[in-house]
Amino acid sequence: MSILVVGSIALDTVETPHGKADDALGGSALFFSTAASFFSPVNMVGVVGDDFNFADVEFLKNRNVDFSGVVTESGETFRWGGKYHKNINLRDTLFTDLNVFQDFKPTIPEHYRNSELIFLANIDPDLQLDVLDQINKPRISVLDTMNFWISSKRDSLMRLLRQVDILILNDEELIQLTEKHNLYDGASDILKEGPKAVVIKKGEHGAVLVSANGYFLAPAYPVKRVIDPTGAGDSFAGGFMGFLSTCEEINHQTLRQAVVYGSVAASFTVEDFSFDRLKNISLGEIKERVNSIREMTSF
Amino acid sequence: MSILVVGSIALDTVETPHGKADDALGGSALFFSTAASFFSPVNMVGVVGDDFNFADVEFLKNRNVDFSGVVTESGETFRWGGKYHKNINLRDTLFTDLNVFQDFKPTIPEHYRNSELIFLANIDPDLQLDVLDQINKPRISVLDTMNFWISSKRDSLMRLLRQVDILILNDEELIQLTEKHNLYDGASDILKEGPKAVVIKKGEHGAVLVSANGYFLAPAYPVKRVIDPTGAGDSFAGGFMGFLSTCEEINHQTLRQAVVYGSVAASFTVEDFSFDRLKNISLGEIKERVNSIREMTSF
Repeated sequence: MSILVVGSIALDTVETPHGKADDALGGSALFFSTAASFFSPVNMVGVVGDDFNFADVEFLKNRNVDFSGVVTESGETFRWGGKYHKNINLRDTLFTDLNVFQDFKPTIPEHYRNSELIFLANIDPDLQLDVLDQINKPRISVLDTMNFWISSKRDSLMRLLRQVDILILNDEELIQLTEKHNLYDGASDILKEGPKAVVIKKGEHGAVLVSANGYFLAPAYPVKRVIDPTGAGDSFAGGFMGFLSTCEEINHQTLRQAVVYGSVAASFTVEDFSFDRLKNISLGEIKERVNSIREMTSF
Repeated sequence: MSILVVGSIALDTVETPHGKADDALGGSALFFSTAASFFSPVNMVGVVGDDFNFADVEFLKNRNVDFSGVVTESGETFRWGGKYHKNINLRDTLFTDLNVFQDFKPTIPEHYRNSELIFLANIDPDLQLDVLDQINKPRISVLDTMNFWISSKRDSLMRLLRQVDILILNDEELIQLTEKHNLYDGASDILKEGPKAVVIKKGEHGAVLVSANGYFLAPAYPVKRVIDPTGAGDSFAGGFMGFLSTCEEINHQTLRQAVVYGSVAASFTVEDFSFDRLKNISLGEIKERVNSIREMTSF
């Protein structure tokens, strides 16, 4: 089942206690696609500058990631720089150079408009609304966002909530969006706005799925050495939707499994810089960690 | 199977976003005993001032909590005051008046010395060592501690680690004790010192059990309205050891179940001030939440 993602393509300069990466591949659309591509073909919509070297993403093309929705504009590719603390859950953003991403207006190619699953990665909510206007109603639409849009474009976000099936966000974003300090209270408020499910990402503490069917509490896979957390959230979304794309039926059981697949995809991403770990694993290794989580949570 | 606890008995003045309690029953030994008393008789060693009203703990006596190891000294009972933030995971200590607890030297009554399970609640590690010297080797010994002792009495703590079976502590304490930011790394260091298992409490994020048998990842029970988190950690230990006291064999399977019982005991404690919720529940309600956690973690 085909997956459409609309999001950012970036070159990240990242420093962590374990080393440094310069101008490494990054961005929500790329992390998402890498994780999702283990399961199904992915159609990507984004923008890069004329400094972007498509040879660097050859590994994704070989996995049925379609770049025909990625536009090249004259100028530089979006660049982000960050430095992680000794406590690797904390980071400082050093710079955000939007470059060609500043004027990104996603146009969905005709042959993408019937994608069955769509992931609206974190971009301006007005652009996310515009994307929904351009496509036929997908089987499942999933929305991500971030603190900046929650404070600056709340109205657009609330309109989006009424049009998507699932909201994925982290715990801090949920608190900010709902103004509830209790995650379960906050998630319950979101469900009233329209989504059928909310997935709350809690980093090293795992994830929570909230729907009319109750709660599902998933741990994070125990990673011994977190090298670089960049992209974990988008990899989570990629594993989550990738798994859903293989399911005949999307119900509370397959949603639960999808959350675990998301958690596992994120666990691989953080084990090295950029895609260095995620791109070199197999679907078998993903499934092994899923089974391992099942073992580590049973009692 | 009898359980011995050595710890504090306190009167807590607590303010949370949901209200205030003045001079409410508290302290590690009381919270532990309340939770453990659902499972087995508990022998308590502690100290109170002559202002302590034993009628207030009649409910515990009725549940086979033996207070004959609790000494009354002239002076005031240990008092602690704290205020929780709107984000109820954060708190400020307003005062700590040790009073009679200042000179507490635990003496284990003769008829307690063969207790089969012992919980060394958070007191001065030198006193905890002294307690171990006074008793016959128990079937299971469990140690708790806190940041203050980790920084001020590290050597004594390390000696204790070589003599106990299980260490229970929270994530911040583990980082402080091991100087490892990764919990799994830290727990692995602890196991090398002697304990057969480490239980890491992560508050609303659940708990992790680490032993030679691998990891067990337990969520916190989803509490909708946290009224007062005081005593959650000691209630966890009480539920954990209470359940173990009912097990013929203590192995990795029963340890996992015990962690979930601990988590559930804590979930009741935080739903009201002091023991107001925990003391009014039944073992049946505890088991219901344990089953509910099993359902919420299966996939």
